[in-house]
Amino acid sequence: MIQLETICALATPQGIGAIGVIRVSGERTFEIVNKIFKGKDLTKVDSHTIHFGTIRDGGVIVDEVLIAVFKTPKSFTKEDVVEISCHGSDYIIRYILKLLLQNGCRMAQAGEFTQRAFLNGQFDLVQAEAVADLIAADSEAAHKTAMNLMRGGFSNQLKALREELIHFASLVELELDFGEEDVEFAERDDLKSLILKIQNFLKNLIDSFDAGNVIKEGLPVAIIGPPNAGKSTLLNVLLNEERAIVTEIAGTTRDVIEDVLFIEGIKFRFIDTAGIRETKDVVESIGIERSKDAMRRAEIVLLLSDSQDSNEDFISEFDEDKIIRVRNKIDLVAKAENVDGLGISAKNNIGIDELKAAIVAKAKMKKQADTMLTNLRHYEHLVKANEALSEVLNGLDLGITGDFLAQDIRLSLHHLGEITGAISSDDLLANIFSKFCIGK
Amino acid sequence: MIQLETICALATPQGIGAIGVIRVSGERTFEIVNKIFKGKDLTKVDSHTIHFGTIRDGGVIVDEVLIAVFKTPKSFTKEDVVEISCHGSDYIIRYILKLLLQNGCRMAQAGEFTQRAFLNGQFDLVQAEAVADLIAADSEAAHKTAMNLMRGGFSNQLKALREELIHFASLVELELDFGEEDVEFAERDDLKSLILKIQNFLKNLIDSFDAGNVIKEGLPVAIIGPPNAGKSTLLNVLLNEERAIVTEIAGTTRDVIEDVLFIEGIKFRFIDTAGIRETKDVVESIGIERSKDAMRRAEIVLLLSDSQDSNEDFISEFDEDKIIRVRNKIDLVAKAENVDGLGISAKNNIGIDELKAAIVAKAKMKKQADTMLTNLRHYEHLVKANEALSEVLNGLDLGITGDFLAQDIRLSLHHLGEITGAISSDDLLANIFSKFCIGK
Repeated sequence: MIQLETICALATPQGIGAIGVIRVSGERTFEIVNKIFKGKDLTKVDSHTIHFGTIRDGGVIVDEVLIAVFKTPKSFTKEDVVEISCHGSDYIIRYILKLLLQNGCRMAQAGEFTQRAFLNGQFDLVQAEAVADLIAADSEAAHKTAMNLMRGGFSNQLKALREELIHFASLVELELDFGEEDVEFAERDDLKSLILKIQNFLKNLIDSFDAGNVIKEGLPVAIIGPPNAGKSTLLNVLLNEERAIVTEIAGTTRDVIEDVLFIEGIKFRFIDTAGIRETKDVVESIGIERSKDAMRRAEIVLLLSDSQDSNEDFISEFDEDKIIRVRNKIDLVAKAENVDGLGISAKNNIGIDELKAAIVAKAKMKKQADTMLTNLRHYEHLVKANEALSEVLNGLDLGITGDFLAQDIRLSLHHLGEITGAISSDDLLANIFSKFCIGK
Repeated sequence: MIQLETICALATPQGIGAIGVIRVSGERTFEIVNKIFKGKDLTKVDSHTIHFGTIRDGGVIVDEVLIAVFKTPKSFTKEDVVEISCHGSDYIIRYILKLLLQNGCRMAQAGEFTQRAFLNGQFDLVQAEAVADLIAADSEAAHKTAMNLMRGGFSNQLKALREELIHFASLVELELDFGEEDVEFAERDDLKSLILKIQNFLKNLIDSFDAGNVIKEGLPVAIIGPPNAGKSTLLNVLLNEERAIVTEIAGTTRDVIEDVLFIEGIKFRFIDTAGIRETKDVVESIGIERSKDAMRRAEIVLLLSDSQDSNEDFISEFDEDKIIRVRNKIDLVAKAENVDGLGISAKNNIGIDELKAAIVAKAKMKKQADTMLTNLRHYEHLVKANEALSEVLNGLDLGITGDFLAQDIRLSLHHLGEITGAISSDDLLANIFSKFCIGK
């Protein structure tokens, strides 16, 4: 195991709370914490036990705390770890961190605990990245996807396939040593079928990337319709009803405003298309084109018309199976009259529950694989690995020599290895873990 | 021990963090958590141990968690307690809380864990209230005061004195049973000297209330001086320099603006006296009188003059030992010239460190007792107890009959008891603990 400096950080969020937890990890953990903790000698207690005592700065009692002890390798980082559970006061937390620094710790960088867990073989890179995704998960689907990745997900299968490919690579490399003798240790047909198997696996993952991102960002829903159909009123009713976590994400242009709304644990991103109303008044501009682009990305389209008028102007731009037809201002229609589509009154809150059920039903029709790609880094390496494997296939078909074949296989192995961290550079790791929060 | 419903709450702040800690306390803690935890059977593990496992909702893995087990009576509340340390995701935290509720917990109210600790005799009411003060403490002095109270502070002495008084009370009550016989079991001189001793103790505490509040709210510092002496420039320099936690507390009038600033761990509340400059132009109004009142509350006065002019208009309003004389715009003075007071240039940042040192030195001259009163509730009961004791003394001097004497003593005991919670009503407790944060 790599021995590094002993690090510390607040592991719980800043702010007002009953308790705060400070995490310490590294070779000198017990030695350093013993210096400021008056209670049991932490080197002499069992792993996974909790001890009451006080944190002292000379004669000053800084706090009464509980200390949880985790001994190497039975900890998150596989190093010696202590978690100090103190009163949730900013003053106390800063004081204890200061004492730890004075006694030989240094502040942990973002993601450094997880990075150490990875470096010490606790899990692979995909699993480590899933920890950050898990913390950020805000919907059932995002949570499920991250949890699946954290608990192995596609890593194990990918690693097994890569092992098989390494086996072939070594056979091909072996042939090179017998270059003069024209032998073939690696059965070309078997290699080909392995590559096709790997490519099939990669392709399914690559194809899941769009769906995976929809899960992370929210399923885009556009509300479209003529002026005064009640688009904004409908959006407001939907948002207020759910007491939603409403965020206004400034879009690519000032005209595209997106609101995030959770219905039944599913994350939706409603695209406000108000900007498009002005197309009739102004010269067609890049800005408006962008608004339309945002709408075209929609996975669900609420086509809103009012009770007097049914507008189908935009229909041609969307797949029919994305559209939910909604007739607003139903309260103005005589009861006997037949209504085309789902009848609602946004203003009077009629039919809104039915509309939400229809939106959720549409969302659930999108098929979701258990394992989905949500990480751009994985996506890029998978695409490159897939391309490199195609090159190998090409070479096999053309009957190229073993040295070229070996080179293409090595490139595939490299890209596959970068995903799980079997191959990794310091720069890559620094970049990945810097996206974590401090204390993780 | 009182058996109550099993309660749960998030004990760490909401927001982005590596981990979140959910606290569960009550008779059914292990039974309920066992239902959703896949790992060891928590009824069969030792107290103060930590266990890894997963939280499950049927077939869904909600999170990988660490569970800390505390068995009655060796826990904060003295009940069975579990702390679930999960990934710091809002989604996961809400999910686990939901599962706990579905399986028989109810959400804890603000301060309910601490209230149970009090009801189960973990500590008295003063100590319980100090927990909230400790969490809110933002300066060295506030922290020290709260820590002192939490660890016993004046409670123990108060309780001992009250016990002595109870002893006398029972003797006096005993005399009543022998009403016809004119006996005196309670030696009147001893009673009198006990009461004087208690009053002396109470008086010291009561007197510390002003100082105690200064610690909580910050030591008030007024910057006064003629127009254009550079008061605002000085304030800005002080605030920017320290990268202070700046809060603008609207005062009693629009003219009194207060800024909080920490220097060397001491909390200062700077009072902006800009409003007073206008007294020369307008009829003296209530508003301006209030500004002056705020200034009069100042414990430290920075009397600012510019290098040309030395203004001592306000001097008579302040104690001389509160005043620090500051000569601003020192850069405009010829070097040879003697300067009266501390020379600074707020604009050019000259002498500011020296000024801060002078302010800190003034603050440190204020004597601070180890035990100080910071809680208005304690203050009011102590004042009332003191008054009731004076009544007892009066009665003793007048030689009133035992039944009146007993009544006055009982009233004193009541007020003394309410402070530590020896006597408490549900309303009082509800009011005290509702000021805590949830999860404490």
